[in-house]
Amino acid sequence: MQRVHKPVLGIDLMGADTPAENLLSAVLKLAQKSDAHFVLFGTADLFAKNSCPPSVTSVTVSEVIGMEDDPLHAVRRKQDSSLCVGMKKLAAGELTAFVSAGNTGALMASASLMLPLLNGIDKPALLTPIPTRKGEMAVLDMGANIICTATNLVQFALMGIAYQKCRGTSHPKVGLLNIGTEAKKGTPLLREAYQLLEEKFGSTFIGNIEGNQAFQGLADVLVTDGFAGNIFLKTAEGIAAVILEELGRSPEFAGALQTLHTRLTYAEYPGALLCGVDGIVMKCHGDADPKTFCQTIEGALRLASHNLIDKIKSHLLLSGKYA
Amino acid sequence: MQRVHKPVLGIDLMGADTPAENLLSAVLKLAQKSDAHFVLFGTADLFAKNSCPPSVTSVTVSEVIGMEDDPLHAVRRKQDSSLCVGMKKLAAGELTAFVSAGNTGALMASASLMLPLLNGIDKPALLTPIPTRKGEMAVLDMGANIICTATNLVQFALMGIAYQKCRGTSHPKVGLLNIGTEAKKGTPLLREAYQLLEEKFGSTFIGNIEGNQAFQGLADVLVTDGFAGNIFLKTAEGIAAVILEELGRSPEFAGALQTLHTRLTYAEYPGALLCGVDGIVMKCHGDADPKTFCQTIEGALRLASHNLIDKIKSHLLLSGKYA
Repeated sequence: MQRVHKPVLGIDLMGADTPAENLLSAVLKLAQKSDAHFVLFGTADLFAKNSCPPSVTSVTVSEVIGMEDDPLHAVRRKQDSSLCVGMKKLAAGELTAFVSAGNTGALMASASLMLPLLNGIDKPALLTPIPTRKGEMAVLDMGANIICTATNLVQFALMGIAYQKCRGTSHPKVGLLNIGTEAKKGTPLLREAYQLLEEKFGSTFIGNIEGNQAFQGLADVLVTDGFAGNIFLKTAEGIAAVILEELGRSPEFAGALQTLHTRLTYAEYPGALLCGVDGIVMKCHGDADPKTFCQTIEGALRLASHNLIDKIKSHLLLSGKYA
Repeated sequence: MQRVHKPVLGIDLMGADTPAENLLSAVLKLAQKSDAHFVLFGTADLFAKNSCPPSVTSVTVSEVIGMEDDPLHAVRRKQDSSLCVGMKKLAAGELTAFVSAGNTGALMASASLMLPLLNGIDKPALLTPIPTRKGEMAVLDMGANIICTATNLVQFALMGIAYQKCRGTSHPKVGLLNIGTEAKKGTPLLREAYQLLEEKFGSTFIGNIEGNQAFQGLADVLVTDGFAGNIFLKTAEGIAAVILEELGRSPEFAGALQTLHTRLTYAEYPGALLCGVDGIVMKCHGDADPKTFCQTIEGALRLASHNLIDKIKSHLLLSGKYA
């Protein structure tokens, strides 16, 4: 893939639950204080109402992939959608990274069709950093692959380790999401994955981690298939939201609530990273507010400035030698 | 199964993470204010140190099934364990209900081996009531069956409905734990279950429920396989514990914390009910404190006083007619 030097960030403004107008005005504000160049993908009527500063290029598209669209079908039929046009520009090396809050399946499908897979990776995965008592843990896969093999899970571990190294953790520890700590627990898939992870990673693999232990921060990387990962993340979001709302009802909590909110609301964290493909693709929650959308964009810029993809590539190359 | 009229509650004091002495003294206190007769199963040294009042019978056993024991092996070999002796007495109609905080797998295995399955049920399931914005939701299966068929999930729905009717909800609604709301979402198992649930229950089935929506209280019964159910429950517990601990650090939260704690700590809720067998078997968390253990006992007494098993049986019979 051709490299661009000044960060050029591609942003899909369409197809999210939040109105494109709201995302656009937040991004235009962000552009004013950012060194990056922004390339925005949206429909003509969206750009007609707003003028873009020099650091922003608008690319007008004629189609939009909606949340209800069948991912593969939409990606094949709606070639002039914001999502497909943006992904094509990322694949052509015209963008440093691409961010979308649209249809997750379509984003995945277009990335898989247009970007090369990284060497040694069979399936891309969605990685989400979640807060724990001891820092951020990278959880993958968060929903890209409902059905996985044990080898896929080992590859997810490799990518998670590379991601955490890129973020400054020198010896990231890997855990396997399961329903008990013993090696024999869980499905046949998980028992096989346990064995493979132990063989490949030795003491870097700290074993099975249960849902209630995950937030202790023992692992830096939590490996799971996309189904269990999605249940895990959404359940954590759901219960956190109920508690924060409950607290919000009591005026005496108002003071310290903000701190807790920042620490625990997943919306404060940059969206999911689609890893395994040769390019930085980030997925923001479909219902993310403009602030969160901008945080995802900033997260993508940070990962780009740390040369995430190159680091993942060298890590995969290195790990291949031990394999 | 033979029926006993005065409630006689069997309690396994052994094999939990909490010391048996602590459970025993809490149960003896509970016995003083309860109308039920308690039959306690424990080792000789445990009963040697404590004298039991007339409303309590102690049954001395020579073996203990530990948390690390292989369930089926332990149940077959340790026939004189508190868990097996208690289950045998429940099967013989000498107990109204049986409560244990020991090895979940062994409790399941002994119940499956010794108690008849209810008519129309192929696999017992663990049911846990969890708090939502609108009241308690019965979630099953919470971990008894890692691998399920779509028919198993329909049977879980039937048992969940009967349980909620027994608790006073006239028209319980059923949801299916999944990673998206559309019928086509999730694994092939879940797509098949969605179709069967829709065919069997009509508008009583409200569709797929995601982890983040589960706590809104739209469903009274949430159906899931034991793997996803266990991830769901433990994740909810884990994040709730982190938030409550975080709040506990701020003195200004102390006041209202207790209320929130009571509403959200799952330990305050009676343990899981093993349903699908002909007898009330309740499983308390292995690390439950004595207070929670007693709440589980009281929960079992409540279910017995409402004739839970008879109600489930008639509901299954009735549903069979529509099947």
